Amino acid sequence: MTATEEILDEVPWSGVSPDAARRLMVAAVEAFAERGYHATTTRDIAGRAGMSPAALYIHYKTKEELLHKISTIGHAKAVAILQSAADAEGTPAERLEQAVRHFVVWHAGHHTTARVVQYELDALDAEHRAEVVQLRRQCDAAVRRILTDGVKAGDFEVPDIPGATLAVLSLCIDVARWFNVAGRRTPDEVGASYADLVLRMVGARPRS
Amino acid sequence: MTATEEILDEVPWSGVSPDAARRLMVAAVEAFAERGYHATTTRDIAGRAGMSPAALYIHYKTKEELLHKISTIGHAKAVAILQSAADAEGTPAERLEQAVRHFVVWHAGHHTTARVVQYELDALDAEHRAEVVQLRRQCDAAVRRILTDGVKAGDFEVPDIPGATLAVLSLCIDVARWFNVAGRRTPDEVGASYADLVLRMVGARPRS
Repeated sequence: MTATEEILDEVPWSGVSPDAARRLMVAAVEAFAERGYHATTTRDIAGRAGMSPAALYIHYKTKEELLHKISTIGHAKAVAILQSAADAEGTPAERLEQAVRHFVVWHAGHHTTARVVQYELDALDAEHRAEVVQLRRQCDAAVRRILTDGVKAGDFEVPDIPGATLAVLSLCIDVARWFNVAGRRTPDEVGASYADLVLRMVGARPRS
Repeated sequence: MTATEEILDEVPWSGVSPDAARRLMVAAVEAFAERGYHATTTRDIAGRAGMSPAALYIHYKTKEELLHKISTIGHAKAVAILQSAADAEGTPAERLEQAVRHFVVWHAGHHTTARVVQYELDALDAEHRAEVVQLRRQCDAAVRRILTDGVKAGDFEVPDIPGATLAVLSLCIDVARWFNVAGRRTPDEVGASYADLVLRMVGARPRS
C-alpha cells in the first residue's frame, strides 16, 4: 500500500472507543457537514447513530465536546502529514512535493471531515479554539521549515516565506470545498498536479 | 480611486431597493455567515434588520429566496471582475495579474459575503443552483481564456489548463476563509502577492 493509499484508507476515528463513541463521531461529522454545526442538535446526532439522546450523553457532555474531538483528531492528522514530510529525507523540493501531495489527498479523500474541521473553528469555545490554533501553527511551521530549507539551499526563490506558506496551505485546504468524488480527478491526481503547481510557486523546477 | 479601492468600496447590495429589502439582505448575509444558513430563521433575519417577520415576507417569500438573491449578486460580481480582466488590453500576464488581484481583493474585502456565496451553494434549490453553476462556469471560462491566450503566445507554460484554472480560482476563493481584517496584510497586499504566485504557477516570470 502506498503512502497516499494509506491516507485515503485510514478512518480518522479508528482510535476512538468504545464503538458507540466512534459511531456518534461519524454521525456528528455527517450532520455538521450537511446542515452546519449550529443547525445540528445532539438529538439529530444520536438519531443518525441509531441511539437515544441519553445514550449520547454517556459519551459526550455537549455538542461542542464532539466538535472539539473531531477538530483535534483532524488537525492532529494534518500536523502528522506535514511534519512527516518536513522531517523526510530528500531535497526540499521532494519534501515539499510530499507535503502537498499527502495534504491534498487527505483533504480530497476525507473532504466531509475536512470541511467540518476547517469551517467550524468559530463554533469551538475559547479554550478549545486556542488548542486548535496551536495545532494550526504546527502545520504552518512544518511548511515554513521546508520553504526556508529550500531557500537556504538555493533551490527555491521565495520573496515572502510566511505569505507563500499561507498560500500553499490555503490551496490544499480549499480542495475540501470543491473536491467531488464524482469528478474527473482522483485525490492522488489532484495531489500530483498541485505538487507541481506549488513547486512552480516557490520557484523550483518541477521534476517533470 | 483605483480599481481595487472601487472593489473594496462597493456595497454589493447597493442596487437592491427598496431600502427595507436591502437591509434584510445585509442582515441575512450576517446571520448566514455567523450561524450558517440552516441555523438561521427568517425571524432572526427580520430581527437583525429591526423588522417584523411579516415585514420580511413583503420582500422575500422564503429564506431560500434571500440566499438565491445574495448568491446571484455575489456570483455576478465575480463574473464581472474576471471577465473584465479577460477582456482587458495588455499581455496575458497583465490580464492574469489583474484577474487574480481583483478577485482576491473582492474575497478579502467582502469576506463575509464571499463565505456565504461560496459555502452555502448546497442550500439553494435545484433550479437556483443550476443558475449559479452557470455563473461559476463563466468565471472558469474567463480565467481559462487568459491561460489559453498565454500558452498560445508562448508566455505561459501550463500542461493542464483546466486543472490550473481550478487551482487559480480556488486559491483566490479560499482567501475568504482565512482573511482577517485584524491581520497584517491588506486586501491589496494579498492580491499583489497572490498575483505573483499565480504568475509563477503558470510559468510566467513575475515582473518583479
